[in-house]
Amino acid sequence: MTLARSPLARPFPPCPPLEGVTIRTARAGYKAWDRDDLTLIELAAGTAAAGVFTNSACASSEVELGRGQAKLGRARALVVNAGNSNAFTGRRGRHAVEQIMAQVAQALDCLPSDVFVSSTGVIGVPLPVDKAQAGIAAALDAKPCGFEDAARAIATTDTFAKGAHAAALLGERQVELCGIIKGSGMIAPDMATMLGYVFTDAAVEPAFLQTMLERANAETFSCITVDGDTSTSDTVLVFATGRAGNPALEDWDSEGADAFYAALLSVCRELAQLVVRDGEGATKFVEIAVTGAESDTSARVIALAIANSPLVKTAIAGGDANWGRVVMAVGKAGEPADRDRLSIAFGGLWTARDGEPVPDLDEAPLAAHLAGEEIAIAADLGLGEGRATVWTCDLTHGYISINADYRS
Amino acid sequence: MTLARSPLARPFPPCPPLEGVTIRTARAGYKAWDRDDLTLIELAAGTAAAGVFTNSACASSEVELGRGQAKLGRARALVVNAGNSNAFTGRRGRHAVEQIMAQVAQALDCLPSDVFVSSTGVIGVPLPVDKAQAGIAAALDAKPCGFEDAARAIATTDTFAKGAHAAALLGERQVELCGIIKGSGMIAPDMATMLGYVFTDAAVEPAFLQTMLERANAETFSCITVDGDTSTSDTVLVFATGRAGNPALEDWDSEGADAFYAALLSVCRELAQLVVRDGEGATKFVEIAVTGAESDTSARVIALAIANSPLVKTAIAGGDANWGRVVMAVGKAGEPADRDRLSIAFGGLWTARDGEPVPDLDEAPLAAHLAGEEIAIAADLGLGEGRATVWTCDLTHGYISINADYRS
Repeated sequence: MTLARSPLARPFPPCPPLEGVTIRTARAGYKAWDRDDLTLIELAAGTAAAGVFTNSACASSEVELGRGQAKLGRARALVVNAGNSNAFTGRRGRHAVEQIMAQVAQALDCLPSDVFVSSTGVIGVPLPVDKAQAGIAAALDAKPCGFEDAARAIATTDTFAKGAHAAALLGERQVELCGIIKGSGMIAPDMATMLGYVFTDAAVEPAFLQTMLERANAETFSCITVDGDTSTSDTVLVFATGRAGNPALEDWDSEGADAFYAALLSVCRELAQLVVRDGEGATKFVEIAVTGAESDTSARVIALAIANSPLVKTAIAGGDANWGRVVMAVGKAGEPADRDRLSIAFGGLWTARDGEPVPDLDEAPLAAHLAGEEIAIAADLGLGEGRATVWTCDLTHGYISINADYRS
Repeated sequence: MTLARSPLARPFPPCPPLEGVTIRTARAGYKAWDRDDLTLIELAAGTAAAGVFTNSACASSEVELGRGQAKLGRARALVVNAGNSNAFTGRRGRHAVEQIMAQVAQALDCLPSDVFVSSTGVIGVPLPVDKAQAGIAAALDAKPCGFEDAARAIATTDTFAKGAHAAALLGERQVELCGIIKGSGMIAPDMATMLGYVFTDAAVEPAFLQTMLERANAETFSCITVDGDTSTSDTVLVFATGRAGNPALEDWDSEGADAFYAALLSVCRELAQLVVRDGEGATKFVEIAVTGAESDTSARVIALAIANSPLVKTAIAGGDANWGRVVMAVGKAGEPADRDRLSIAFGGLWTARDGEPVPDLDEAPLAAHLAGEEIAIAADLGLGEGRATVWTCDLTHGYISINADYRS
């Protein structure tokens, strides 16, 4: 099965090479495909690392090990295997990851704990260590390449290569941030996952890098959903080589910290939205903004209830401004809401206000908005100051075809 | 759009007439359809009533009023409107319900609070009071009919009439229970809802009837899901006319209380499962049993996470024993789980045990089970004694067609 390029795809942006980041790819052959599927990224000595991981109680060994490595805050290499997630593979799976770490550590003369490993693809099949080891040996010999090549090599059922770039001025020193991501295509029985990586030549202390990543994650990766299903391998890592030569950012008071965070947030938001744009079967990109909730947390729960509702998502697919389904989703979210203060808008046009339909609504501009590719839904609860914005896509026949019609 | 009868449909069972229950239907014309859409059921003086309702924060006026009436514990009539849910219609919607209650109360010489009203169908359009009043007048003049007629009249996008029957021996007195239900078909922009009604000629004290209904509800209606979307009008009511002449059941120590509860539970379970069998686009009925959880509550949350996962549901639709997606759903449920103790079975065949795939698995019997219409998924967490069983259906192109392809 070959998936057509998403109609919501974006071109890969210009991403400059970064000092201290050397990218190589090779073909391990995890699946019967004719492309590189192993990515080895070497990072300069002293690179700071930070990470956020899936909350799944059934996370993969890669995630379990990665959580501990991110706490150490240092990295010398990243290996990404595409085609096999190595999830739910028990001791054999864990051993496979440890062998990869040992092999790369020996080649780069670093500690195994400096080598981050991610895997994505079919679940329940232990990663074939022989293929991994041959792939790593080939990658170590390969010519360095660019971020777009890496974005292609980490992909599984993605329909386009996804990247983002931003720069920030720290004092007089410009630093660059380049990010790549894969997901959220899924194809039976593969469970593809969201794996995202951001690289920068800025110098940042690991603890502060982690703080910034967690904050950015809460506003970006944690605000997207395609189908409400959480993978066993979701991972986002940030690596800062320090080769730009700025005085290392230590906290929010460091010169340029705000500028760096703004650039990091911009890269994370773009990467997160690109995943939604490649959502399985997606034909429309949907932004859902909830305001007037009792708290930001409550607003986010409500926004995700709307974003994950199959009835809302199918209505969007059908070009139907079905605000009654938005009401339903608000009602089921389990958060404080008052039917008689609730207002709903599509594309800035209010269809219901304070618990009642807007009388004599002009349907034409509504229909025009719903016919487009970028849909905006707003729900105001009229209770407080809490607000949140999340992004999702519509639910179409394409999703069913990808996940039901084709067998492994 | 005419929906084909669900392949999982069941014939309407024999339901005897009940003493003290007089059923009439009429055509209010809430939609442009050629069928009765208003049901008026008269209940003998002294009928006990109990009810459970949606937890939606945006519930309809019918639900708000019904909650209060159920607390009073008495009923003389039930009115069900099909084609308009009267949800999210503000003061006008509430006034419509109050007018219906007043009209029926006057005709039957009872209190308005003795008249329960349910409405189901399109959301956000106030119930047309003139049509309701003409329909009630017509129903009051109509010839009494049977439960199957009522099951047809309360339906909206249901593809078959749904009913259940059970009997219980209370001492030497046999009592009968007959139930009807509608749902969970949904069609843009209608939001059909689950409305269920159980009638019995047994004598039961209202408080104990409520206790039994809540207990049965927790094991039946609260254990089904089609798409995880909760309606604004979900309601289940039980009416006990007392005309069987048994000494009224007052608590669990009353003679026959256990037998009555068993019959009530059986009717509720059958009605609940019939809703799943008419789930939109359903081609397979799925039972999900979770064992070994830390508590029954935890087991139910995990079972519903599996049942609501679009990836699990599409795998079932595709006849794919994709246990990796079940692992994913367990992992995302937010409940205690240990990957290395988790075991998954389809149709009683274990595919993964203690966190690893079962080696040399014979795929043939698995494939045969998945090809059938009745699918059983078991997940054992290996942590404790908590268990729960829920029922759902698969997610198919039919669901998308019903909810996205057709407009209002």
